[in-house]
Amino acid sequence: MLRTARSEVCGTDVHLWHGRLSGVPYPIIPGHVSAGTLESIRGPLAALDGSRLREGDRAVFFDVHRTCGRCRACTVHHTPTRCAARRVYGITDSASEGLFGGWSQYIYLEPGVGIARLPDAVHFDDYIGGGCGLLTAVHIIERAGFQAGESVLVQGVGAVGLSAIALAKLSGAAEIFAIGDPEPRLALARDMGAALTFSLSASSAAERLAAVRDRTYGEGVDVVIEAAGSPRAIEEGVQLVRDGGRYVVAGHYTDAGPSSLNAHHDINRKHLEIRGCWGSQVHHFAEAIRILEQHAATLPWRAIGQRTYPLTALNEALADAEAMRITKALVDPWRGEG
Amino acid sequence: MLRTARSEVCGTDVHLWHGRLSGVPYPIIPGHVSAGTLESIRGPLAALDGSRLREGDRAVFFDVHRTCGRCRACTVHHTPTRCAARRVYGITDSASEGLFGGWSQYIYLEPGVGIARLPDAVHFDDYIGGGCGLLTAVHIIERAGFQAGESVLVQGVGAVGLSAIALAKLSGAAEIFAIGDPEPRLALARDMGAALTFSLSASSAAERLAAVRDRTYGEGVDVVIEAAGSPRAIEEGVQLVRDGGRYVVAGHYTDAGPSSLNAHHDINRKHLEIRGCWGSQVHHFAEAIRILEQHAATLPWRAIGQRTYPLTALNEALADAEAMRITKALVDPWRGEG
Amino acid sequence: MLRTARSEVCGTDVHLWHGRLSGVPYPIIPGHVSAGTLESIRGPLAALDGSRLREGDRAVFFDVHRTCGRCRACTVHHTPTRCAARRVYGITDSASEGLFGGWSQYIYLEPGVGIARLPDAVHFDDYIGGGCGLLTAVHIIERAGFQAGESVLVQGVGAVGLSAIALAKLSGAAEIFAIGDPEPRLALARDMGAALTFSLSASSAAERLAAVRDRTYGEGVDVVIEAAGSPRAIEEGVQLVRDGGRYVVAGHYTDAGPSSLNAHHDINRKHLEIRGCWGSQVHHFAEAIRILEQHAATLPWRAIGQRTYPLTALNEALADAEAMRITKALVDPWRGEG
Amino acid sequence: MLRTARSEVCGTDVHLWHGRLSGVPYPIIPGHVSAGTLESIRGPLAALDGSRLREGDRAVFFDVHRTCGRCRACTVHHTPTRCAARRVYGITDSASEGLFGGWSQYIYLEPGVGIARLPDAVHFDDYIGGGCGLLTAVHIIERAGFQAGESVLVQGVGAVGLSAIALAKLSGAAEIFAIGDPEPRLALARDMGAALTFSLSASSAAERLAAVRDRTYGEGVDVVIEAAGSPRAIEEGVQLVRDGGRYVVAGHYTDAGPSSLNAHHDINRKHLEIRGCWGSQVHHFAEAIRILEQHAATLPWRAIGQRTYPLTALNEALADAEAMRITKALVDPWRGEG
Repeated sequence: MLRTARSEVCGTDVHLWHGRLSGVPYPIIPGHVSAGTLESIRGPLAALDGSRLREGDRAVFFDVHRTCGRCRACTVHHTPTRCAARRVYGITDSASEGLFGGWSQYIYLEPGVGIARLPDAVHFDDYIGGGCGLLTAVHIIERAGFQAGESVLVQGVGAVGLSAIALAKLSGAAEIFAIGDPEPRLALARDMGAALTFSLSASSAAERLAAVRDRTYGEGVDVVIEAAGSPRAIEEGVQLVRDGGRYVVAGHYTDAGPSSLNAHHDINRKHLEIRGCWGSQVHHFAEAIRILEQHAATLPWRAIGQRTYPLTALNEALADAEAMRITKALVDPWRGEG
Repeated sequence: MLRTARSEVCGTDVHLWHGRLSGVPYPIIPGHVSAGTLESIRGPLAALDGSRLREGDRAVFFDVHRTCGRCRACTVHHTPTRCAARRVYGITDSASEGLFGGWSQYIYLEPGVGIARLPDAVHFDDYIGGGCGLLTAVHIIERAGFQAGESVLVQGVGAVGLSAIALAKLSGAAEIFAIGDPEPRLALARDMGAALTFSLSASSAAERLAAVRDRTYGEGVDVVIEAAGSPRAIEEGVQLVRDGGRYVVAGHYTDAGPSSLNAHHDINRKHLEIRGCWGSQVHHFAEAIRILEQHAATLPWRAIGQRTYPLTALNEALADAEAMRITKALVDPWRGEG
Repeated sequence: MLRTARSEVCGTDVHLWHGRLSGVPYPIIPGHVSAGTLESIRGPLAALDGSRLREGDRAVFFDVHRTCGRCRACTVHHTPTRCAARRVYGITDSASEGLFGGWSQYIYLEPGVGIARLPDAVHFDDYIGGGCGLLTAVHIIERAGFQAGESVLVQGVGAVGLSAIALAKLSGAAEIFAIGDPEPRLALARDMGAALTFSLSASSAAERLAAVRDRTYGEGVDVVIEAAGSPRAIEEGVQLVRDGGRYVVAGHYTDAGPSSLNAHHDINRKHLEIRGCWGSQVHHFAEAIRILEQHAATLPWRAIGQRTYPLTALNEALADAEAMRITKALVDPWRGEG
Repeated sequence: MLRTARSEVCGTDVHLWHGRLSGVPYPIIPGHVSAGTLESIRGPLAALDGSRLREGDRAVFFDVHRTCGRCRACTVHHTPTRCAARRVYGITDSASEGLFGGWSQYIYLEPGVGIARLPDAVHFDDYIGGGCGLLTAVHIIERAGFQAGESVLVQGVGAVGLSAIALAKLSGAAEIFAIGDPEPRLALARDMGAALTFSLSASSAAERLAAVRDRTYGEGVDVVIEAAGSPRAIEEGVQLVRDGGRYVVAGHYTDAGPSSLNAHHDINRKHLEIRGCWGSQVHHFAEAIRILEQHAATLPWRAIGQRTYPLTALNEALADAEAMRITKALVDPWRGEG
């Protein structure tokens, strides 16, 4: 049993709030990425690194608590994020089944959940500032096959995009561009490592293309990462990547409508590679912890989580997140308690 | 100097005929893939395998006769098919520069052209039956990262699609599906190795999807290869591939208009990989020769080239090719000569 | 509960017989790869392809029945064959724990074991003829990154080597060489697809090197597969592969002593890649079934299993296997029963 | 014609001095990596990035000035470093052919040589401090398939090893270990990014293994890089890498004798990957320039070049390099001139 210290409000939660995801067994306890202190442990419990966990340890856990391990997605295709039996804290489990969500003072960690001790150097707010966006970004960078010295452009400066910028920076990117809004997020993108940022609303696609080509030998960037969720972003992204480059599409978590692509110009002749990226796996979680341990002191993940709300103010948190008034809302389920 | 025995009329030539490719320095001598006999050699001449070529040898050559070897596409990105200085027999050279095309009794092989001796087991008609479609198919299979035991579906049963089917078969494909028209090409697709073929006009997309899923654990195929050149094929292809599979887009050699894709359903959530495939490189040419040497006796490449035309009937050949009355027209520049 | 129809005696069993593997909890029931008929099923039971299994179905199962799914080998490194908690039928489980081995009339299939229905086209003797050697060979070919058109040389013509030859053939190998003894196994190697075989005892390493180079442009082969288990094979293997090629080391299942390699000539200057290959995973098992379904009619896996022994003659079977009097001994636990 | 500002004395030059490389057409002008100012240009000259070079530009060039581009190593295997016709400034060309070496006041840059303008931020001493070791290190990191978050151990702290440490750091390595001597080089290794260094002479292999395992979950590191050239390093390296890890062998530029490996323990059961790495290609050169442009200000490549010698003191430079009294000797062919 984990005593929750922090949970988060992410884009998924806004979608859940509006009922946009199919198959969710409402009512649920939202909050899929959370951190806290191990309150009581039944039997010996091992962390992912093999060490013994003890009551009182600061701990975090991987939110995907079950994949079947037997279906063709799990065993043959090595795409466990596409397992039909996949279950995720805060999303797929009904509140009637137990404490399977982070917007709660306690969370039940069932057997088999991947747990990690939070390193001393990492504050709860660092971890939740990164949150699920950081895990997704670890997957994106892996999926991009990113190598030091490559140039990268990130579409979208929400939690996923900001972490992708940070990871590209850590991985030795030659130059990082970012597109998004509003300005405070673009400022955070620059703090994360972006050399050049574009306001989506205050610049035209033609201006962005010209500026990017001007700094990339006239070619476009090696890797474009889509973390925007907009059909128009897809149409622009294939223009910004160089011939023979890679385009990772990670931001379309829900259906935002169709994009129009010209297969001749945008894919075939460009010799382009487009890679969809869905969810994350437990090794991305382990990797995220290691990255935070090394870099939380110098990269501002904590700044992504701009404001912390008590359980009584969650509708306000959701509304603030939706209106993009804040980059990310954190949840402290003990705040306001006597 | 090569005495031309056979050249071909491929889809590119139909596009060239109508002036659909930009930057072509008309008048040109068309015919980019050809075969013949070495008539006269100036100085020692080595084949790609290092052996010495002699006058009288039956020889074939790689049609891309120059890439710069110094630009970023050639050196940094390893995408020589995107080199701006790339020159191709039968396409990029004006007739005023010399004999740089196969619809001619002789072809000038300039220094540096990759030449191979045609193995005894391979007839001129086998080589030209495969032609540029076979080279493109070698590139497609490499780009697909195809492994034995995978299922594959090929969209389009022209010269490229038919060779892709044959190569998938040789590479140990578990099951091969093909979509196209007309029926004689579908019959040839089955001879090449397709287990199940669909007439594009006589079946619906829903029927094809149901039939493919029914034979692939309900998943769709591991690899879809687009060799059709139609925007609608792109839209259907992303449905036919399984989650986490690969989709190679190779058939959009010219601009046939936009396709509509839903990034959420078709790319992101599917965890799909879309790989554009442009042109071919000299190692694909060397590989194609080796494949013909081993398999021309058992796979009907020769049957792709259905009819051989003299130089005086080339407009008829182009018209037949465009109307899909034949799979591929061959050219014999000596036919009809006294 | 599986009523055992066939099990096998593989090289591992000979090692187990002599106590050469560490950590084995004797007494055990040997026999890690087996096939039979589902006798009784408790609750609904699904095959790996998702279909429902029923009593009376002919079935086979993946012998690794547990990996932890939580350690760093399982989750971070994606090397489940190196999981410390890995348990394998016929090897790691004491007889006192239950029916966990194939040399027995019944085998207990515990929950979570990967089970597949044996296709109608595949006889029990085809499956056991391939046996664990086929699964290992599927892993080897995957690890080799084998592509159609490549040349390959296999060192060793036991059960692993013979299946590797068959899979290279199915995958479109340009030319396959094999080295081993005795002659009946070399004959079987040729039936599996080897174009040229060498008797290890009747030819010298220099002769083999010269013959291989003579047929590979003077280079050596693209891929060498070691399935011999001899330190001398390692020393010869690095000579037979071309510069920039790949050498898969799969045959050293036990410690046969050191090999001497010259890092300058054999690895560094050769720009060589050496890839160790240990054990197999459940997707290799699923793949093996699919391969047998397609190819058991034309490739002689059944001929690998040369003789079938009753439970009362197992010491004889082990002695015959060790003396290489037969390629593989099969076990029929019901033979000789009234 | 390049007016040489700086050249270097690398390990290769010490080998050349002693006549240890075969096929060298003595007398030669040594010095394969050099930097200078373009003195006179015949006709238009383009840099690798496509821009026009002008007299007076500070320039550097890729030392491999010819590969044939037609042999199987160049075209089929994509291993141009193994092209038999490869020619390298300072190594393969006789002095009688012209100014093909850097220990000279002028160097002739023949047509086709890959030339880059040295960015303003990069001093000649930065470039030559990195020198050929930096290019080799770029190749090593590429060959390692290195990803951010991985742990790495570098054997050897000469010019190659130090640059490999720097590049691992830039690429987001989780933790970097180094083994070597003497102490000033280990100090430089720490400045480059190594978290823990071991003196080869003052620690035992058992101590190093224990210390590395203690900091890597008991596993060993993800990637070991051999840049030591010692047969004993090979034997230790396979112990230090984790199961399923990668071992890049790059330091055996000459024959230093055999290493003893146990294929069972060191390769097969470890599921290890050993990758030989020979020479470098032009894209490694382009990448090295880009890295220096970004990072020369913060990483001490300049400190690798400890002392600069005039042409009249080259024997002293070679003796100092051989005795490891300095990390690298630089050459200024104009020093001491009136």
